[in-house]
Amino acid sequence: MDAESAEPGTVRPGGRTARVRAAVLQAAGDSLAERGFAHLDLADVARRAEVGKTTVYRRWGTVTGLVADLLTDMAEQSLPRTETGSLLGDLRANARLVQRTLADPRQGALFKAVIAAATCEPKTAEALHRFYDIRVSEWAPCVQQAIDRGEVPEGTDTHEVIRATSAPLYYRLLTSGDRLDEAAADRAAEAAAAAARAGAYPRSTRPSGTRPGVSRSTPRPAHVP
Amino acid sequence: MDAESAEPGTVRPGGRTARVRAAVLQAAGDSLAERGFAHLDLADVARRAEVGKTTVYRRWGTVTGLVADLLTDMAEQSLPRTETGSLLGDLRANARLVQRTLADPRQGALFKAVIAAATCEPKTAEALHRFYDIRVSEWAPCVQQAIDRGEVPEGTDTHEVIRATSAPLYYRLLTSGDRLDEAAADRAAEAAAAAARAGAYPRSTRPSGTRPGVSRSTPRPAHVP
Repeated sequence: MDAESAEPGTVRPGGRTARVRAAVLQAAGDSLAERGFAHLDLADVARRAEVGKTTVYRRWGTVTGLVADLLTDMAEQSLPRTETGSLLGDLRANARLVQRTLADPRQGALFKAVIAAATCEPKTAEALHRFYDIRVSEWAPCVQQAIDRGEVPEGTDTHEVIRATSAPLYYRLLTSGDRLDEAAADRAAEAAAAAARAGAYPRSTRPSGTRPGVSRSTPRPAHVP
Repeated sequence: MDAESAEPGTVRPGGRTARVRAAVLQAAGDSLAERGFAHLDLADVARRAEVGKTTVYRRWGTVTGLVADLLTDMAEQSLPRTETGSLLGDLRANARLVQRTLADPRQGALFKAVIAAATCEPKTAEALHRFYDIRVSEWAPCVQQAIDRGEVPEGTDTHEVIRATSAPLYYRLLTSGDRLDEAAADRAAEAAAAAARAGAYPRSTRPSGTRPGVSRSTPRPAHVP
């Protein structure tokens, strides 16, 4: 194995290093979808990928490192953004893509597993945040186009409109358990478009780039949500 | 210990059984918030609660049973719904309550832990869905009042408006990592109110009470969300 010089992120596409990485990430994704993060194991991933155990340990080091690289790879695998000429059409295309992914048995289980891992692994949380930053940035231009067309007010937070389109679908996946069907996707898109047209997503005055996570200065409430 | 006849859900408030349950559930919540679901352990919970190990094993049986009972208890601890006289005011009160809870270090960690557990434990998922059903049902009347006042169209799905108010806050907590501050709560409320006024949440034609989880008949997509 030629792993010595191959840190994640420096692989050349098409070479043996890239083939090994693809096999290992596929195996990691399969294992996460089948068994969840708690049972992810580098030796098992190596066996599934038919790759030497030493290679996997040397290149990825820990399961956290492996999941972070999987998320980097997932972020690179985007589909081209659909342009329909209207905000509602574009958001509907986005919502249906998210819904189909989350409703897919393997992909839905994989997203649940990495989101669960991120709740207790700060490095996985960072990798997950980067993944969503990339996805949201890819789709935000459709909101800018809606601003340019006059569909949506100037000063609208384009990224927030994309996040708002996904949020109800993740809420179904992770908390309420309600059906993740195409009607849910269309409703999420319609709600985000309507709220955007009404000016409900103004850019905040907070300096961009800050991400302090969760505010710590709030009073302690009862179990409310 | 008088645990023999005390199944979860049949405890009498105020008695020794209720005091034992309160101590055990407090300890379970503390452990989940500090260490996550993967490290939840009945013997450790018994020690923290200063309750006999046998009592905890006999009454709750498994960590899954204990988490389900904790969620039942959390569902019972609601605060009274605020009535402000306008849909936006009511939704803002709801969103701020959710935001304060999720932004609280202990409570936020506890919610992350039970949501993560629900991704891989079907019984925990059922208990979590029941928790959200109860919370959403408590707040849905504010949307009905908005319908009655003519603020929102007839036929609006009152529960869905409440879920839509929470969804962006859970999205921040679990996926994007963006700041969970009061501005995020107010924006979530404004967006849900604007979308509701625009008629974006019509009641679906699906028979109520069905919850088939995730549709299984969709084509397999790339890693898109």
